[in-house]
Amino acid sequence: MDIKKLIGEMTLEEKAGLCSGADFWHTKTVERLGIPAAMVSDGPHGLRKQDEKSDHLGVNDSIKAVCFPTACATASSFDRELLTSLGAALGEECQAENVSVILGPAVNIKRSPLCGRNFEYFSEDPYLAAQMAGSHIKGVQSKQVGTSLKHFLANNQEHRRMTSDSVIDERTLREIYLAAFEGAVKSAKPWTVMCSYNKINGTYASENRRYLTDILRDEWGFDGYVMSDWGAVNDRVAGVQAGLDLEMPSSDGINDAFLVEAVKEGKLKEEVLDQAAARILNIADRYLKNRKPDAKWDKDAHHDLARKMEGECAVLLKNEEILPLTDSDEVAFIGYFADQPRYQGGGSSHINSTRVESAVEAARDKRAIYAQGYEIDADQINSALLEEAVEAAKKVKTAVIFAGLPDSFESEGYDRTHMAMPECQNTLIEAVAAVQPNTVVVLHNGSPVEMPWIDKVKGVLEAYLGGQAVGGAIVDILYGQVNPSGKLAETFPRKLEDNPSYLYYGGEKDVTEYREGVFVGYRYYDKKHMEVLFPFGYGLSYTTFEYSNMKADKLTMKDDDTVTVSLDVTNTGKVKGKEVVQIYVEAPESQVIRPVRELREFTKVELEPGETKTVSFKLGKRAFSYYHMELKDWFAETGTYLIHAASSSRDLRQKINVKVESTVKEPVVYNLNSIIGDILSDPDAADIIKPLIDRYKKGNALGNSDGEAAKSAITQQMDDAMFRYMPLRQILSFAPQVSSVKEMQELVARINEKK
Amino acid sequence: MDIKKLIGEMTLEEKAGLCSGADFWHTKTVERLGIPAAMVSDGPHGLRKQDEKSDHLGVNDSIKAVCFPTACATASSFDRELLTSLGAALGEECQAENVSVILGPAVNIKRSPLCGRNFEYFSEDPYLAAQMAGSHIKGVQSKQVGTSLKHFLANNQEHRRMTSDSVIDERTLREIYLAAFEGAVKSAKPWTVMCSYNKINGTYASENRRYLTDILRDEWGFDGYVMSDWGAVNDRVAGVQAGLDLEMPSSDGINDAFLVEAVKEGKLKEEVLDQAAARILNIADRYLKNRKPDAKWDKDAHHDLARKMEGECAVLLKNEEILPLTDSDEVAFIGYFADQPRYQGGGSSHINSTRVESAVEAARDKRAIYAQGYEIDADQINSALLEEAVEAAKKVKTAVIFAGLPDSFESEGYDRTHMAMPECQNTLIEAVAAVQPNTVVVLHNGSPVEMPWIDKVKGVLEAYLGGQAVGGAIVDILYGQVNPSGKLAETFPRKLEDNPSYLYYGGEKDVTEYREGVFVGYRYYDKKHMEVLFPFGYGLSYTTFEYSNMKADKLTMKDDDTVTVSLDVTNTGKVKGKEVVQIYVEAPESQVIRPVRELREFTKVELEPGETKTVSFKLGKRAFSYYHMELKDWFAETGTYLIHAASSSRDLRQKINVKVESTVKEPVVYNLNSIIGDILSDPDAADIIKPLIDRYKKGNALGNSDGEAAKSAITQQMDDAMFRYMPLRQILSFAPQVSSVKEMQELVARINEKK
Repeated sequence: MDIKKLIGEMTLEEKAGLCSGADFWHTKTVERLGIPAAMVSDGPHGLRKQDEKSDHLGVNDSIKAVCFPTACATASSFDRELLTSLGAALGEECQAENVSVILGPAVNIKRSPLCGRNFEYFSEDPYLAAQMAGSHIKGVQSKQVGTSLKHFLANNQEHRRMTSDSVIDERTLREIYLAAFEGAVKSAKPWTVMCSYNKINGTYASENRRYLTDILRDEWGFDGYVMSDWGAVNDRVAGVQAGLDLEMPSSDGINDAFLVEAVKEGKLKEEVLDQAAARILNIADRYLKNRKPDAKWDKDAHHDLARKMEGECAVLLKNEEILPLTDSDEVAFIGYFADQPRYQGGGSSHINSTRVESAVEAARDKRAIYAQGYEIDADQINSALLEEAVEAAKKVKTAVIFAGLPDSFESEGYDRTHMAMPECQNTLIEAVAAVQPNTVVVLHNGSPVEMPWIDKVKGVLEAYLGGQAVGGAIVDILYGQVNPSGKLAETFPRKLEDNPSYLYYGGEKDVTEYREGVFVGYRYYDKKHMEVLFPFGYGLSYTTFEYSNMKADKLTMKDDDTVTVSLDVTNTGKVKGKEVVQIYVEAPESQVIRPVRELREFTKVELEPGETKTVSFKLGKRAFSYYHMELKDWFAETGTYLIHAASSSRDLRQKINVKVESTVKEPVVYNLNSIIGDILSDPDAADIIKPLIDRYKKGNALGNSDGEAAKSAITQQMDDAMFRYMPLRQILSFAPQVSSVKEMQELVARINEKK
Repeated sequence: MDIKKLIGEMTLEEKAGLCSGADFWHTKTVERLGIPAAMVSDGPHGLRKQDEKSDHLGVNDSIKAVCFPTACATASSFDRELLTSLGAALGEECQAENVSVILGPAVNIKRSPLCGRNFEYFSEDPYLAAQMAGSHIKGVQSKQVGTSLKHFLANNQEHRRMTSDSVIDERTLREIYLAAFEGAVKSAKPWTVMCSYNKINGTYASENRRYLTDILRDEWGFDGYVMSDWGAVNDRVAGVQAGLDLEMPSSDGINDAFLVEAVKEGKLKEEVLDQAAARILNIADRYLKNRKPDAKWDKDAHHDLARKMEGECAVLLKNEEILPLTDSDEVAFIGYFADQPRYQGGGSSHINSTRVESAVEAARDKRAIYAQGYEIDADQINSALLEEAVEAAKKVKTAVIFAGLPDSFESEGYDRTHMAMPECQNTLIEAVAAVQPNTVVVLHNGSPVEMPWIDKVKGVLEAYLGGQAVGGAIVDILYGQVNPSGKLAETFPRKLEDNPSYLYYGGEKDVTEYREGVFVGYRYYDKKHMEVLFPFGYGLSYTTFEYSNMKADKLTMKDDDTVTVSLDVTNTGKVKGKEVVQIYVEAPESQVIRPVRELREFTKVELEPGETKTVSFKLGKRAFSYYHMELKDWFAETGTYLIHAASSSRDLRQKINVKVESTVKEPVVYNLNSIIGDILSDPDAADIIKPLIDRYKKGNALGNSDGEAAKSAITQQMDDAMFRYMPLRQILSFAPQVSSVKEMQELVARINEKK
């Protein structure tokens, strides 16, 4: 397409029209100019393409597709390549089905376990979330199909999600909520971004120029188009002004007419509309130019891929010498989910799966019996089912209970109100564990649950919502065909009230304050020295790993340089396995309020028994930085940092000190309210102010330590503090004779000049 | 004085001069008009009058006075009359010494255990703080001497206290930080108020019209004068404009000249300056008119009063059948504080005591030996002293260790950085407890400490900083002459990191964010379901109390009415004792984010063994209210409230339900972004909108539950949530045919008209 030419030939009405959907899933055609419609479809862990009636809520079935593990599971892989291959598989399906953009991935931060949509999100950590999302995007787009990174921005609850205002300070936005998008946009260049429903600090995301344009495009270099979440448009004209290019779905011409009117009345520059239309055409063209009309995809191969992936995702949380099982063991598979696994969540991401593989089915060649144990979607105990399950458990060597959350407990559209599993399931686990010491629990859930029974069972495997092949993947792990290697991408707190957002999550009416600031997830639990059920980054293996020999290629660096750290990882157990090595950076000398340590890098390494590999990581300025509000930039304070190599956020194995020297000066402007302690600790300033201070000390008891040997050490300590915290102007309160406002102002001006 | 006439006769320069001190402690005289100087002196738990050199930091001794228990102790009495008698004693001393205003009480909230000045403050709870401060003020002012309620406002740290900006949301200010002042001002009408050094939300307290005038005078009816904390004036002209009447200390005429200049240049209205001068004269006159030139006070009687008071204040935290001791027991008093008690804190409140009574001295007629145990003001263990103490402990039936915080650990002027006691003291306690199962710890400290040894000792008595007679009071309690009745006015957390302000306390540079909001103290620990070391309101007695028969005079009330609840308290033990009955109100049906329950009333009742008394409490609107941001007023939601009678914040004994009906309507304005759930739950609005909703449901799948029997319960649940949270405008996204922007705007206008 010659997009510039096309835009020139389009009428105002055609351009306005192109900036909203033709229906629920297509952009408009402009037949006289040969502009075809482009289709977008829901994702992101499978293709949810609907052809018929415009509907995105699952009332009408979408076409058959493979449901891969959901984001809560894939994030636990800590495996960038896995996400890329998932993306590539989706891209193949899209090419085969002529879908130009598959919506997702969703990179929103897991602020609370309660968010109904957590299962679609990756992590409580923005670096991990960005890496996973970026890898997913690279995979899809390698097939010349677009992605739509969503939901931009600060959409961390389902409660009143269409109108809720996320009130967040700038540093927290930068370090946590924006950072997840930033990393994905910069590393993987998604073709499109989807704005969220909510407001951010008072302005709807759909008309928020600061995020849609200033940051997304101008700072991060995004060059695709921004579309609205379905129905997220509030004021269409303000949206186009702000950088929202495509409105979805169709607003039946209503908003198109507003755009036309705004241009005619001079309220909206036509060039701004042209730009939006051109961005949409540019992506449509990118897809068309690379169209693979003969593309095919293999349902069985993708199913097998889904099974293999989930094997990398599931997290072994507890294993007291009970797993893996052996094929000859008599085992009872207990629980509805053993036969009917919950493997995806409700809402726009819901896939019409090609098939579903349960654990019961996958274990058909093992010596496993089955008992249902509980009714699905019920909190109440079914005594008959319970009793049957207990009896089954008594008969075997090992009981494996498949439990978790029913669909009704978590879904797009609403939040959970508590963190508990259904009463019937908790009771079942307690009852089985009471008669069967060898009990393992397999969990199917999209977000952390409380585990009141944790001390009574020997094993726990967190399968998350593991896609349509989850049953096979679980059997692979239970019986040792696959050695588990997933690590938690989120903290499991002991109870809901422990969560950092607990006091304010959900908000009041339409205002939700993010008062915990940057202290999300492990950043909070670590800072508050809290016990957790399972920490971020935690997960067991059937083998063990040792870390050794950590090194850095330099021990001192400027902030514009990089440091490479390396270490050896050895498989010290008896089976092959994969370890996720995590790099956390700690700034013990920081002058600002920061988390204890933050994830800055990770890798997943596979090792044969006895094998050692060296892994290395390159860390640049960002790994040491916080977002500096006055500099409006990332800032690495001069100081010594601790770089930890860790097997989880609470299992730090090796560490090394690196001194970073900042090449940037913090802006400091002194005035009469600057405190003496600050001035004296700044060498330039101290020189200038010294004579005044000396005169003051001589003339006044305050801070005067000369000739007062009799003064107690205590009084001296308090005097010192008084003096340190005293603003310059106060010299005139306590010793007016030593200076004047005029002299002080001159001194301050001299200092500021020198800075 | 004919103040109006005097003001008329004063020159501009004289008026400006009158609005700042003559020196550190006096207002100016105007000899030609017969206006005498008035003296102010530090308090508030004793008179710190300095005659000689202007100095308020204890470099020069003040006159001898009695040091009563400090506020951290007196608040634990939960005894209004005790505070009033303390105030009356101070008032007597002031009359005798010709002091017109004794500075204090200080009613700042204990936001963190770290605040160096906590010992001068009452509580983490604003109601208790206000009641204690009000009672103190009534006592002083009953002697026709003024008080200065301080430090107004939000001065909750010593770190950078002169320049720090306390950033606090309005509701938190109203419910917590202002509330402590509000209750004291309204109930006791202090003659003066002292503004603090810090800023509040960007503006120095000393020039903050919102607090000094709009709220303090216009809302609360304060009619005295406001003075600056010593050196708190930043911009003197802005200060007078804002309502800061008196600058202290003298600024040597510098700021007086600025005032004169401002009036001459028309930047400050002369009437504003007149008003400030008149307020100062008014209070001076009030003192002079009621002067008692022959007043005397009795040092010994006040010392005895201080001893009696501390007996009501000390809190028995633990007692495993070890206290009281009997006179015939052989006891070792161990620890420097047994001989040299720490009984007050450093800084402006430091009293030059008439005498100090140690426990060793007070127990001279008992069978007690003494060992020093540790060095004061040292963290390090002194092995010889430790060994001597352990040997002494071995020889006796019971060891009583006197421990706590040295002066250097807490003081005005700087904050603590941790919550630990000195290492040498913790080690001493562990070492003694290891050889002597009967070990009691007596604590001298101004703020909570961590107690790593808590499970190893049988008794703990928290004496706080108990005034100059603390040793006598402790001996009274240890040996059962006095039955302890103090209750904690603050939570003792298990560790510092548990404190709600921990993440942000102290702030960054000059900004301190109060992100925990209203969740201060027990309001946080209760909401977060956290374990604490000792809860708010907790304290043991040598007897036991039973609560019974709780009643209310009505079970339903309008918010402008009051309810009286009563209950019976019985002394079920064998000795006379006093119980603090605490009334907490809980709003389980609240629609806003609120603490679980809040202290709304309390009383202290003395009972002979077997005796029962009925106590009753009257609760009005405020007891049920939160501060409503849109109403800009206190608001009691319509709903059922739980009123608890409790022996501590975590020992709820009796409860009763009362239904409160609001006479105030919350302001609601609907617009196209109002969500359907809100509109339908408002009967007036629902009627108007119903036809549109029906059309929408008929025309669109969303929210359409008709004729879709096949739809799963899950999908229905999500649809319901989608529909509930959908803003009106979105109807046009999903079903543009059923309405128009114009129609919706008209409907909304009709609803708003009807409201």
